[in-house]
Amino acid sequence: MHKQLHAAVLVVCLFVTSLLRAAEPATVEQWGLHEITLQGPRDGNPFVDVRLAAIFDNGSRRVEVDGFYDGDGIYRIRFMPDEQGRWRYETKANRWELTNKTGELNVTAPSKGNHGPVRVRNTYHFAYADGTPYKQIGTTIYNWLDTPDEVQERTLQTLAGSPFNKARMLITQQPNPFMAKHPPSRWPFAGRPPRDWDFTRFNPEFFRHYEKRIGQLRDLGIEADLILFNPYGRWGFETMSAENDDRYVRYVVARFAAFRNVWWSLANEYDFLRTKTEADWNRLGRLVQQADPYDHLRSIHNGKEMFDHGKPWISHASIQNGVAVQSAASAEIYRDVWRKPVVYDEVRYEGDASYRWADLSGQEMVHRFWCGTVGGTYVGHGDYFHSLGNDTWTSFGGSLRGQSAPRLAFLRKILEQGPAEGLDPIDLWNDPDTVGQAGRYYLTYFGHSAPTGWTFQLYKRGVVDGMRFKVDVIDTWNMTITPVEGEFVTRQKDGYHFADAEGRVVSLPGRPGMAIRASYLGGAKASVDANAFIDPNAPPEKKKSLR
Amino acid sequence: MHKQLHAAVLVVCLFVTSLLRAAEPATVEQWGLHEITLQGPRDGNPFVDVRLAAIFDNGSRRVEVDGFYDGDGIYRIRFMPDEQGRWRYETKANRWELTNKTGELNVTAPSKGNHGPVRVRNTYHFAYADGTPYKQIGTTIYNWLDTPDEVQERTLQTLAGSPFNKARMLITQQPNPFMAKHPPSRWPFAGRPPRDWDFTRFNPEFFRHYEKRIGQLRDLGIEADLILFNPYGRWGFETMSAENDDRYVRYVVARFAAFRNVWWSLANEYDFLRTKTEADWNRLGRLVQQADPYDHLRSIHNGKEMFDHGKPWISHASIQNGVAVQSAASAEIYRDVWRKPVVYDEVRYEGDASYRWADLSGQEMVHRFWCGTVGGTYVGHGDYFHSLGNDTWTSFGGSLRGQSAPRLAFLRKILEQGPAEGLDPIDLWNDPDTVGQAGRYYLTYFGHSAPTGWTFQLYKRGVVDGMRFKVDVIDTWNMTITPVEGEFVTRQKDGYHFADAEGRVVSLPGRPGMAIRASYLGGAKASVDANAFIDPNAPPEKKKSLR
Repeated sequence: MHKQLHAAVLVVCLFVTSLLRAAEPATVEQWGLHEITLQGPRDGNPFVDVRLAAIFDNGSRRVEVDGFYDGDGIYRIRFMPDEQGRWRYETKANRWELTNKTGELNVTAPSKGNHGPVRVRNTYHFAYADGTPYKQIGTTIYNWLDTPDEVQERTLQTLAGSPFNKARMLITQQPNPFMAKHPPSRWPFAGRPPRDWDFTRFNPEFFRHYEKRIGQLRDLGIEADLILFNPYGRWGFETMSAENDDRYVRYVVARFAAFRNVWWSLANEYDFLRTKTEADWNRLGRLVQQADPYDHLRSIHNGKEMFDHGKPWISHASIQNGVAVQSAASAEIYRDVWRKPVVYDEVRYEGDASYRWADLSGQEMVHRFWCGTVGGTYVGHGDYFHSLGNDTWTSFGGSLRGQSAPRLAFLRKILEQGPAEGLDPIDLWNDPDTVGQAGRYYLTYFGHSAPTGWTFQLYKRGVVDGMRFKVDVIDTWNMTITPVEGEFVTRQKDGYHFADAEGRVVSLPGRPGMAIRASYLGGAKASVDANAFIDPNAPPEKKKSLR
Repeated sequence: MHKQLHAAVLVVCLFVTSLLRAAEPATVEQWGLHEITLQGPRDGNPFVDVRLAAIFDNGSRRVEVDGFYDGDGIYRIRFMPDEQGRWRYETKANRWELTNKTGELNVTAPSKGNHGPVRVRNTYHFAYADGTPYKQIGTTIYNWLDTPDEVQERTLQTLAGSPFNKARMLITQQPNPFMAKHPPSRWPFAGRPPRDWDFTRFNPEFFRHYEKRIGQLRDLGIEADLILFNPYGRWGFETMSAENDDRYVRYVVARFAAFRNVWWSLANEYDFLRTKTEADWNRLGRLVQQADPYDHLRSIHNGKEMFDHGKPWISHASIQNGVAVQSAASAEIYRDVWRKPVVYDEVRYEGDASYRWADLSGQEMVHRFWCGTVGGTYVGHGDYFHSLGNDTWTSFGGSLRGQSAPRLAFLRKILEQGPAEGLDPIDLWNDPDTVGQAGRYYLTYFGHSAPTGWTFQLYKRGVVDGMRFKVDVIDTWNMTITPVEGEFVTRQKDGYHFADAEGRVVSLPGRPGMAIRASYLGGAKASVDANAFIDPNAPPEKKKSLR
């Protein structure tokens, strides 16, 4: 449906722009993609010589959007309107054929399933622009767009049946044995591999193909976390001049930014790319921020050296550190450092590799997702079972072979049933295994321990006597949610905790991977703000109660 | 001995400065404290009206040092020379009586035990200025200088027999029940408690007393981590104007900075002080940095909100987070974020309090020190057993009542026997429980687990076949080091590890709190740089070997 709509919009646009100042404005939905197509010069090198932009104005805001050259004398400007109603536009270019073109756009309500781009929400979490919570369950398919079309189609089918709502993928290619058998049919630059490139000319066909796939991911509800640079390969991409790097970034942003499901990842394993400095990354990051009119999420992913995610151009931390999600206690630490969402995009992959970065059991993959979740963070998945025909999911897409995906679907369902604001530590730096929203929702994960019971107990913040809770026992691997019979009623136990008035204990099966969910049902309600400041100068009994 | 020397220097200085341009220069040891005393005006408010400094010049460097008013018409300038040889000085002041005074100084070699101020060394560690490693084992005695003199003397005796080489202490007072019984006899400002202050006039007697104690700590080899601001108390110190705050900081720095054992801690639990913003803290931190000619270590300590320790004025992270040192895996995380030394200055205290921030067993306190150590970080101690006569060590000094101190002495000995460069993760984000220097020294801590054996195994970095190691079994609580008979000889086991050529296993007693130390004895030596970069474009077998 989206594709049809998109095609329809294109037709209308072509019509409008060919008439100029046509009476009938084009129509596009909010957060949809509107494209203006213009004919312009094809002499010289239009990628370098021609500057084109449009200013969109809805009477209260102006948005300036860069256009790009798409080859064959065709120029395009893409716009993702973020408000409904009438927008007017006017182009600016350093060529007479392209400048001062005007038109109007009628922006309608978003269609079903279109919630806009994902934004940071509540400091540590994400939501779509329309307010719908976004609970990130990511996966990794680095080179799926360099595979034969049949594999790409199969990848989309697999994704459609998977829990994943984000996929990380490279833009420039990673060389590898599979590629020797199936060389990529498109490259981002004019010229020939391995090193005969013209970095001043892009290959529009490469980008058109990439855009088709971004749009298909969008229609599946999947965010495309696009990796602009990577340390793999010696195609020459890694030693481009700063000028060529900047032009590449601007071109990618001009083409892709109007897709609402785009995220920018400056690099994968940035520190393994020994031909760029931290100053380069900060320049490129700021460039993306400045060039992207829609302020899509921006990150950079580390190898062995942590980037300073405190930098203002970074919207969220994109971390590789598998050991950090072996416990919720360590998972939560990065949150407070940067006060931004933390996404563990690489925590080792589920797989059967002899490399230890791809040898996790399904259980361990699921465990790491739960540790990340209970640490108030988000995790990414990889599936690395090598086969001759298929290589691996994480390198090339195709089919999943691991066992974690259904369990991650189960986790996603639990997250989507949980508080819209996201899950935050309830008793920071004291009880790392419990996350939720004080007084309303609690999720406790027992990890590798295998308790046979759990005494109902809640940290005092947001809790008073007489609150009623229901409790569910969750088996994270067997994917069961078992309600505990009856209700639990809070009664203060000591200076820190409330227990059940009757001291009830929840039975647990003595298996690892169990969790408890406690949800507020009714009864008394805490009258104080759950996050109220507790004065350090209050009497000693109360003074340290924040801790 | 130091005290006598100090007194002698003072006499010489008074003599020199009274004669002006005396033929015989004063003598002071390197990193000792040289004091110039001048007579000046006592009219108006000298604390505010008079600006005094001296420029010290040794022919290759100039150091400008602020002076301060010490009451009764006496002005002083203190200088800690960091190079031996002849220094000349000249004063500058906005009063004729104080300006243009000149003199010379002969700086001799440091005496035994004087290693200079502590500096950051090897990114994550510390060393004295003369290169001697400094292995931080800190403690906390917030209000010890507000107790009766007898308690202060007892505190010094306790410290003399303790493992602690750093003590954290407040400058302005914290009110508490003990203080009601023993009100402080000195306050930093002129006026009367609780709120009748003249913040434009300091109380020199308060500072002279404080300095006497800083000097005594120095002579015990203890760094004084001085906390400039705190959130406790409503004396009015917390609502001083920015101008008064700045003058207070400058006065403290002018008086104390020439003591080589001073560290600056901008605040304790900075975020509980609701009358200052982050901008205030950054202004004050930069002010200390600018005012202190000796660049002493600078930090700021959090309550519940982590400060951005990436700020350039911060030399090391001073963290409160007890849960982070419950495992080495979480302890190490902050290191890579800021690439600075991490000191967990508050990890809960050993004690018998009903407050959970002061209820650790001795075993748990020692466990947290070991987790911090094996995470490549440093930890601080507290002792909070309340008694009517003594209150607690951590509030008021006096005597220790916990059981951890001897075990921390044992740990300190092990650290001082270890590599001078400090202990760093050997296999970052893979084996969080092992720290050391690749190819030379390994310390593995088993924490609460109670293994009965350990198969000799080293991560490949810096290791080749045929290296000989000796292994010791360490009982961190019972304070024993048991050498394992014979040698262990490395042989490659798989793509990541070397084991003993004969597959030897070290027996362990099945108790918690055990550790293993493996030290290189001789034999083959790794020919490659242990930290050499491994090219991500190398063949797949090698490509990911960095991880």
